Amino acid sequence: MQLFYSLDITPNGLCTLDEEESRHAVRVMRLREGDDINVTDGRGNMYLCRIVVADPKACVVEPTEAHSTSPAPRAALHLSVAPTKNPARMEWLVEKAVEIGVGEITLLNCDHSERTFLKTDRLERLAVSAMKQSLHTVLPVVNPPVELKEWLRQSAKLFAPDTQKFIAHCEADQPRTPLASAMVAGRDAVVLIGPEGDFSAEEIALALDCGFQPVSLGHSRLRTETAALYATAAFNLINDR
Amino acid sequence: MQLFYSLDITPNGLCTLDEEESRHAVRVMRLREGDDINVTDGRGNMYLCRIVVADPKACVVEPTEAHSTSPAPRAALHLSVAPTKNPARMEWLVEKAVEIGVGEITLLNCDHSERTFLKTDRLERLAVSAMKQSLHTVLPVVNPPVELKEWLRQSAKLFAPDTQKFIAHCEADQPRTPLASAMVAGRDAVVLIGPEGDFSAEEIALALDCGFQPVSLGHSRLRTETAALYATAAFNLINDR
Repeated sequence: MQLFYSLDITPNGLCTLDEEESRHAVRVMRLREGDDINVTDGRGNMYLCRIVVADPKACVVEPTEAHSTSPAPRAALHLSVAPTKNPARMEWLVEKAVEIGVGEITLLNCDHSERTFLKTDRLERLAVSAMKQSLHTVLPVVNPPVELKEWLRQSAKLFAPDTQKFIAHCEADQPRTPLASAMVAGRDAVVLIGPEGDFSAEEIALALDCGFQPVSLGHSRLRTETAALYATAAFNLINDR
Repeated sequence: MQLFYSLDITPNGLCTLDEEESRHAVRVMRLREGDDINVTDGRGNMYLCRIVVADPKACVVEPTEAHSTSPAPRAALHLSVAPTKNPARMEWLVEKAVEIGVGEITLLNCDHSERTFLKTDRLERLAVSAMKQSLHTVLPVVNPPVELKEWLRQSAKLFAPDTQKFIAHCEADQPRTPLASAMVAGRDAVVLIGPEGDFSAEEIALALDCGFQPVSLGHSRLRTETAALYATAAFNLINDR
């Protein structure tokens, strides 16, 4: 099954796919008028649609049937991660995290971050593509970089009171619980993953003050993007029993 | 900490690092005679060594102290995976699986595999580099491709009787257990991950005959390399409580 994406799809009325989706349907997949495709709005809905105009720049489709999509996940993960120096590693992370299942990704500027210019719009395009690949119908949000400390100070407002909040730092001499033991199923979670030089002592202290629980991610020294993906896998495994 | 690798390192006597490790120590890290480095033999041992000859092609070191390394993992994962068409995706998988923790990787030729020529020696070099990066001292084995059906027929000989054996196939109308529920801690496991077109019905039947349990990996349609990494994360999470 091939899934297409359009924010504008609704149960009633025609919808014009954007240029990239139109090109993919008509040029790459060689679909024609009368062919059926599935289109999601990225907000949990999916429709069986018939192609009405097979224009490679503006393909027009008409919904014929609403699909019952898989039930909404009972909880969502908010992954907050300091971008790596190498943008390819972040791009890879976004693709894989969206495939496995993530609700929201926020990029963190930390005390030890190397501030590199990261194109959030490219990450958003990768998220769309991974959503379609994995047949998800909810498009994860990719937020532009925020200052960690400022963001922590607002965290009480940002997250519902029953959200599980974790900081995965590498200070082996401080108490930390393995993430798989600390996290429970069925509740939203936010996990902070630090930059290559780890969080600063000040950032860890502030996170703990703000109610974040310190967790460890196994016994390996993981790269930033590997740690973030491991946390994503943990969340999905714990919620898939 | 920077970790180096030499199969030849022993507690007693001088050891010459190979050309790649020598270049890395002397040219990249600019280490000199008298500097200390850590060297692992990839078999669970690690030694603090002093550089005796800082030759960028044949750096000679002398072990001064054996490190107590982290305890051997109580169980190991054997990941058996059909290579993806795109070799970069397999290379990425090897890097990430070694970082998170895997004992052995076997490449599977399946009925629906596209047989591509995959350089196992390149994967082995990536495994060495990921072992060093993650400070592991046991180098995972990367086996060259095997024919899945032949390999299954030998599986009773290949695996100890208490090894947990799983096949992660995508036939949603056949009974499967979520991997996280099926897998128990403290026992070796082998997980089969199929090619882009999934295992054939014949392969699934043969695997079940050979005592493999059918498992699912969440509700997403995962790419081959993502499924393999998800299984690796599951194994390590279950063993890290």
